Amino acid sequence: MKATLMYKSGDVRVVEVDEPTLQEPTDAIIRVTYACVCGSDLHPYHDLGDTPEGRRMGHEAIGVVERIGDAVTTLDVGDTVIVPFAWSDNTCAFCRDGMTTNCVHGGFFDGASSATQAEKLLVPQADGTAVAIPAGTDEALMPSLLTLSDVYLTGYHAAVRGDVAPGKTVAVIGDGAVGLSAVLAAKQLGAETVILMGRHQSRTDLGREFGATHVVAERGDEGVAKVLELTGGEGVHVVLEAVGHMPAYEQAYGIVRPGGTISRVGVPQYEDAPVGFTSLFGKNATLTGGPATVRAYLEAAIPQVLDGTIDPGRVFDRTLPLDEIAEAYRLMDQREALKVLIRP
Amino acid sequence: MKATLMYKSGDVRVVEVDEPTLQEPTDAIIRVTYACVCGSDLHPYHDLGDTPEGRRMGHEAIGVVERIGDAVTTLDVGDTVIVPFAWSDNTCAFCRDGMTTNCVHGGFFDGASSATQAEKLLVPQADGTAVAIPAGTDEALMPSLLTLSDVYLTGYHAAVRGDVAPGKTVAVIGDGAVGLSAVLAAKQLGAETVILMGRHQSRTDLGREFGATHVVAERGDEGVAKVLELTGGEGVHVVLEAVGHMPAYEQAYGIVRPGGTISRVGVPQYEDAPVGFTSLFGKNATLTGGPATVRAYLEAAIPQVLDGTIDPGRVFDRTLPLDEIAEAYRLMDQREALKVLIRP
Repeated sequence: MKATLMYKSGDVRVVEVDEPTLQEPTDAIIRVTYACVCGSDLHPYHDLGDTPEGRRMGHEAIGVVERIGDAVTTLDVGDTVIVPFAWSDNTCAFCRDGMTTNCVHGGFFDGASSATQAEKLLVPQADGTAVAIPAGTDEALMPSLLTLSDVYLTGYHAAVRGDVAPGKTVAVIGDGAVGLSAVLAAKQLGAETVILMGRHQSRTDLGREFGATHVVAERGDEGVAKVLELTGGEGVHVVLEAVGHMPAYEQAYGIVRPGGTISRVGVPQYEDAPVGFTSLFGKNATLTGGPATVRAYLEAAIPQVLDGTIDPGRVFDRTLPLDEIAEAYRLMDQREALKVLIRP
Repeated sequence: MKATLMYKSGDVRVVEVDEPTLQEPTDAIIRVTYACVCGSDLHPYHDLGDTPEGRRMGHEAIGVVERIGDAVTTLDVGDTVIVPFAWSDNTCAFCRDGMTTNCVHGGFFDGASSATQAEKLLVPQADGTAVAIPAGTDEALMPSLLTLSDVYLTGYHAAVRGDVAPGKTVAVIGDGAVGLSAVLAAKQLGAETVILMGRHQSRTDLGREFGATHVVAERGDEGVAKVLELTGGEGVHVVLEAVGHMPAYEQAYGIVRPGGTISRVGVPQYEDAPVGFTSLFGKNATLTGGPATVRAYLEAAIPQVLDGTIDPGRVFDRTLPLDEIAEAYRLMDQREALKVLIRP
């Protein structure tokens, strides 16, 4: 079968690999019908060293169940399922807390031996991980349903962990697909003022349609000053940080209101950061966030897509066949596309 | 009048200074009847450089109102009041949020021109800051009431910001007076399991009386391993960090459960700290805390002391007159005393 491998920075190829086989009775194998490229796939695209064996790519998928292990009870062959970017048993103590990305039997498709930018995918802990979409669902809804695999629910996770609620003022840092998803999620959770910090107008225009009430194109100290000006000098109750680089973090603690919260879902490209008296502590600011616990939100989100409450699939502005996925990486890296849907 | 000044590390003296005078119509002047030495006073005691003009010391006080400015309406001369370690107008946008330590007209007695280890104290924003104790209150309750000026309500702030609640497992790092106060506060908020990390038995014994269910004397990796063992490998829902040094922070993220919260009230003696994937982010852990918003909790806490629900004044194990305050610093620095009450 065909799968996407990355061999080093900038070198993405579709190659022939062995089809996955069931390894454990809790596994399922799906034929991938929708996949996509994630902003986080661009990190190795920028800095992966020589990897002669290749790294399997992709962690977002919708597909049709082809085979199930003997222990799988909630899925049937032929079901169309959404697969979150992390697998989880959905029964352990952490999963019961909703912390599915810390499942004791869990893992991430990123860097795993089977990944989603491929014709077929091995899904571990299939009962806990994959969620079926009702049979007969309109194909036009599939892009939005695919965003429940990661990008929309990552934005939603930021908003949930940040306690976005009616009456709160929210700033979203980053106008990538996760940032725009965070805008949509903040609006869903009742935020009145949503300030989107980003400077690519085609993206911030979609952000306005998703619910942003203000757009701040300035960055750094100028961006901080602008947000403070918009909030009467007080700062915002919640910052949703959807970038992961240090300047975004610095912007975040500059604009957060005393007692407010910074919720990060951009995977931090740093380990140490300011958290002392002059950044977080003096303001009684809260820092939260982490890998999105997508699985914990899936059942509630699917009906919202099916009934048209949300249309997060609008972040996809291009579609390419699997064979042309290298072009998808290039388009996103060059910011010629916001997010590319892949059809294996 | 007499006041305590520090001239350099280890050099604390009681000297004669001018009495404070009303500067603003919102000021009050109180005659200090109870003060004390705070663990945070030991930071300059360890590292203050030569300060020929001297630094006024002390930020915890109970006293009797001697004079009030023309704009003061809620206090009368003769009232006995508790003065929190920070002043605040209690009316600005941040105060209305409960963030009194970020009051736009606020400040900290630490480093101010008038401080509490003295015979008299200038209280700015007196209406917003000082809270009267009912006339005729038993003198025996004054030590516990004094802890509402800082130490007990700082422990309480840690527990509130950390969302301590029934059913949660809590660890408190630090067996100083703030740590022990955090134990008492966690118990008040319904925590079932309270693990106190500290190794001074006379202190941890008081911690057990305050509600600690377990004591872990080990530190560093051993301490982390011990707490994980006590929690079935899962970690604690809430860590109350009452130290402020990096090893305590490292211990905190080592023992926090996925999705859990680290609440800091030990003033961080560092600015940068690990917050990336391997410390906070990967666990979806939350970092919160800051200067205690004592003023926001005072009205509710006073009746709890008056009716005997809490007895946080047990952290005082010595009493000295103001003239002997240098000895109080020495006793606390040498850990011969937990916390010393000062009678000006």
